[in-house]
Parts: sequence; C-alpha cells; structure tokens
Amino acid sequence: MRIGALEAGGTKMVVAIGNEQGEILDRLSIPTQTTETTMSQLTEYFKDNSIDALGIGCFGPIDLIRESATYGYITSTPKLPWRNYNIVGTFSEALQVPIGFDTDVNASAIGEATWGSAKDVKNSIYITIGTGVGVGVIIDGKPHHGMLHPEAGHILLAKHPKDTFKGTCPYHENCMEGLAAGPAIEARYGKKAYELAEQVEVWELEGYYIAQALVNYILTLSPQRIILGGGVMHQEQLMPIIHREVLRLLNGYIITPQLQDIENYIVLPKLNDNQGIMGCIKLALNEMR
Amino acid sequence: MRIGALEAGGTKMVVAIGNEQGEILDRLSIPTQTTETTMSQLTEYFKDNSIDALGIGCFGPIDLIRESATYGYITSTPKLPWRNYNIVGTFSEALQVPIGFDTDVNASAIGEATWGSAKDVKNSIYITIGTGVGVGVIIDGKPHHGMLHPEAGHILLAKHPKDTFKGTCPYHENCMEGLAAGPAIEARYGKKAYELAEQVEVWELEGYYIAQALVNYILTLSPQRIILGGGVMHQEQLMPIIHREVLRLLNGYIITPQLQDIENYIVLPKLNDNQGIMGCIKLALNEMR
Ligand SMILES: Nc1ncnc2c1ncn2[C@@H]1O[C@H](COP(=O)(O)OP(=O)(O)O)[C@@H](O)[C@H]1O
Ligand SMILES: Nc1ncnc2c1ncn2[C@@H]1O[C@H](COP(=O)(O)OP(=O)(O)O)[C@@H](O)[C@H]1O
Ligand SMILES: [Zn+2]
Ligand SMILES: [Zn+2]
Repeated sequence: MRIGALEAGGTKMVVAIGNEQGEILDRLSIPTQTTETTMSQLTEYFKDNSIDALGIGCFGPIDLIRESATYGYITSTPKLPWRNYNIVGTFSEALQVPIGFDTDVNASAIGEATWGSAKDVKNSIYITIGTGVGVGVIIDGKPHHGMLHPEAGHILLAKHPKDTFKGTCPYHENCMEGLAAGPAIEARYGKKAYELAEQVEVWELEGYYIAQALVNYILTLSPQRIILGGGVMHQEQLMPIIHREVLRLLNGYIITPQLQDIENYIVLPKLNDNQGIMGCIKLALNEMR
Repeated sequence: MRIGALEAGGTKMVVAIGNEQGEILDRLSIPTQTTETTMSQLTEYFKDNSIDALGIGCFGPIDLIRESATYGYITSTPKLPWRNYNIVGTFSEALQVPIGFDTDVNASAIGEATWGSAKDVKNSIYITIGTGVGVGVIIDGKPHHGMLHPEAGHILLAKHPKDTFKGTCPYHENCMEGLAAGPAIEARYGKKAYELAEQVEVWELEGYYIAQALVNYILTLSPQRIILGGGVMHQEQLMPIIHREVLRLLNGYIITPQLQDIENYIVLPKLNDNQGIMGCIKLALNEMR
C-alpha cells in the first residue's frame, strides 16, 4: 500500500509517500505559494505515486467538524490566498482516495503516539515550542477536538516577578506563546535564541514558563506522557530545569508513579523531526478502516 | 430496575434510589463517620432497597485505574479513617452488584451531560466553585481520566495586579482554588461570601479569576459547553461578569459559534443540585451494559 502524507505549512509543504509501518519511501519539500500553483504541484506528486489514501496535517485555523458545511477548509488564516480554502475537497476530487485531516501539531502528536515516545500510553500530549507554541492532545488513542481543537499554546500564565518583557502575542498580554516561543526569547534579549545558549538566566526563565504551562496541562488533561519538541527544545539544558520546575510548582499536590519518574514522563520526541509526516501517514491509515 | 446512588463526601454521605430515567425515588443523608459505622449504615440502606447496581461519586483522591491493584480505593485523603480504604471492593462484596465509580465532580459532570445543561453535546465541563474548585471533564460522552483524573481546580493563574491576597491553597501560591473558592473570598475580605453580595469589586475580581481559568480550560479542552455550579455561583451578578471577561481575555483569538453565543455556552446547571446524585445513577447504569 502507498500512503500519501502532506505536512501543510504556511511557508513550505512537505509531502511524502509511506507505508503501513510508517516508513517513509520518498519525500519532497516545496515552498507554499498561491493555491493554484502549489495545489497542482502537490496533486501531480500524489498522482504520479498512485497513492491509496492521503493524510494531511495542516496549518490553521482549520475546520475539523465533520458535520460542518466547511469541513476540510483552511478558515481565517492571515495567508490570504489560502483563506477559506477547501483543501480536503480539492484533493478528494482530484485524487479520489480517502483523506485524513487534522492540525499540524495533532499530526505530530499522532506520530509520536503511534511510533514514538508515547506509543505505550493512550493519553499523551505533544508540545512544539518553536516559532509558536502548539499543543496536540491525544485522548483514548485519538486526537482530541471538541468545539474547535485545542489552542493551548495561548493559555494565560503568571508573569515571572522579574520578567518585564511585554510578550509578543498580539492577542494576549501574558500567554504561553507570547512569553516563551522562540521569537519571544529573541525579542526579550535582542539576540538569536541559539546565541544565548550560555546565558543561564535565559533558560531558567524559559524553563519556568514551560513548566508553568505543563503544570496547567497536567492538572487539566492528566496526560500519561508529555513530549516536548520544536526548535527551542534543542537547548539541552532546558529539560532538567523543566523537570525541576514542574515538581516545584505542583508542590506535591498530586502524586503519581509518572511524576515520581519525571525523566520518563516529560520527554523529547523519538522520531527525529519525522513525527509530523509520520502522523500524516497514520491519519491516512485511520481513514481506510 | 432499582439503581443505588451514593455521593460520598468527607462530611456527609447522600444516598438515593433512582431509575433508568434518572428519577430519584428515595433519598437519605447521613454524616460521614468511621468506615465501620458509616459503611454498615450505607450497606443496610442499599440492601433494604434491593438495588440492581450502584454508582458512587466519591471525594478524593481516589484510584480510578481499572488495572491498578488499588482500583476503587480512596487513597491519600486527610480524612484518616478513610485513607487507603477499598470502598468499591467493600460494597461489591456486601451487595454483589455492578458498581460504577468516579470522582464527585465527574459525577456532577455526567449528571448534567446526561440529563441537564450539556445533554446536547459530547464534550463538556462542569466546574463547581464552592468550598473548593473542582472540574469534571466529559470527552466524547465519557468522563475523562488519564494519568489520574483532572485536578483543574488547582491550575495556576496570573494574580490580578490589584489583588494583594496571598491565596488559601497550602500547595500553590496562585492557584484557582486558592484565589477564588468560597473560603478565599471570605479570607480576603473577612466576611461571609453572601454578606459581600452588594460589593461590586468583590464579584468583579471573582469573575476575573473564574474567567481566566475558563479561558485556559477552553484553550486546552475545547469543550462545547461549560457549566458553572457550587455555592459561589449563587451570586447571580457573577455570570454576566464571567461572560464579559472570558471574551475580553480571549480577545478574538478563537472565533466559534459557541463563543458568539456565550450566554448559551457558559451556563448554570439545570438539575437543581441533583446533578451529583443523578450522575451516580448514570455511573451505575453504565456499568450494567
Ligand atoms: N538551536 C536552537 N536553540 C534555541 N532556539 C532555537 C534553536 N533553533 C531554533 N530555535 C528557535 O525556534 C524557532 C523555530 O522553531 P522550529 O520548531 O524550528 O520551527 P517552526 O516552529 O517554525 O516549525 C526559531 O524562531 C528560534 O527562535
Ligand atoms: N449564597 C452564596 N453566595 C456566595 N457564596 C456562597 C453562597 N453560598 C455558599 N457560598 C460559598 O460556597 C461555599 C460552599 O460551597 P458549596 O458548593 O455550597 O459546598 P461544597 O463545595 O462544600 O460542596 C461556602 O464556603 C461559601 O464560601
Ligand atoms: Zn496568545
Ligand atoms: Zn492549589
């Protein structure tokens, strides 16, 4: 079986062909341009590879409500050519195969939950801390949606008493993404994040904010494993700070075997930046049953 | 069919007999004493009524993991006689009927999701704001557990810049329960909450904290309806403040039909303080399938 996978991003599109084991047999990356140009390149690729199903992990916001008239659309994106664009419908007509569809971060969460760091549990979350902060939520083995889909990168946090930075989010004064995504680090200190590697206080503050968000996710979602990905997590000194701060902030209020073994509870991804595209393969497979 | 229901609290036990429609045919309340005294009274009541199944909504922490050796136990409660007590096992042996078991606030959430304010949606949350703050989470029609069960009453919040009160939670400096449960209001102002009814600033601050917590629950769980119960919500002036503050804090970041109709999104319970015991009936019914 040949499974098509598409990680649709605002700046680039990553496409791949995979199999039932999540193995990637071919891969291609193209820049995201107008819908006409880009969609015809993508359709051609999938046709040439005569795929049996397609899975899409898509930049948002998107409509995931199956009963909705605009299911499968990219909705109010600032990327104007793609606003209100029926991406699932267009592929469906052109390719005539089953199509799985979810957010980009849910795709990563599914990839890690199927073949990576969370494959032994039914409830996990995948958090990417990069240009933005995104949270994919797996509950009972399935990506969670609800009213919309979680947008937990924007939860409101308490500012650190010593942090005078205003945050970068145009919507919220003190949300996670605005205080702790890569661009927030860079705006706060006026340097690229990787250039700050040696400055201890940078990663102490970053670890504090990430931990505070994790505490709220733990108390609200009660995941059995938490996976932290994205560019900012390339700073290896962060993980021990996060472990320490999560336990300090929870302060013994809940006690579980997982929290007592926190190095195996809050972990890095296992799929080497393939979690997104592999999650798309799984999205396609789910649609074939 | 005769269904037994037990709302097990640290100070009182409410027992009832109900039917498949959630109707309550009989009800009794007894004080919570030692396990011996109280359990024999409860068992007698259920035996006299020859029940076909039992549902228990229990004070916590409790073990809800079916595979666990201590499934059905009350675990590390400060109520010493009940610590590490096998409540499900004891009833099961004495009554020989199927037993459903969940947290007290999940029982309320199930009650409202089955017969009350959330009966038309599959994903909802029930929040009680009283002596403490508890959150019951319904996902895809079922109470959500995960690693433990949500303890979202203790999520960390940003203090209001004008609020100098330290919070009442012994674990957390700035958690929802410590800043906004009934005892926090009473400690902050030195008066009973109902005596403060006319003081506008009390409910503005309370509404701000409740709204901030709701924003984080909305972004993390994406519920299709939110139900607010508990003693503090008896202050009718709170709901409009909460509606206004949720929209102000979200600041248009997510747009959904539900948020555009917020009076029907964030609502009061419909079951007149019967949501807990009715939820216990449903817990029992679930166990009979
Ligand atoms: N080695 C690094 N150390 C610290 N921060 C980094 C590193 N590499 C990338 N970042 C940060 O992560 C951001 C990019 O995130 P990334 O997850 O790689 O991409 P995206 O979120 O756009 O998919 C950059 O803006 C930068 O702030
Ligand atoms: N009419 C009221 N107005 C404001 N607050 C109230 C009112 N009634 C009760 N409360 C607050 O709610 C708390 C009790 O919460 P309640 O939900 O009734 O019980 P519990 O949480 O113990 O089950 C009290 O401590 C008080 O602070
Ligand atoms: Zn934000
Ligand atoms: Zn607390």
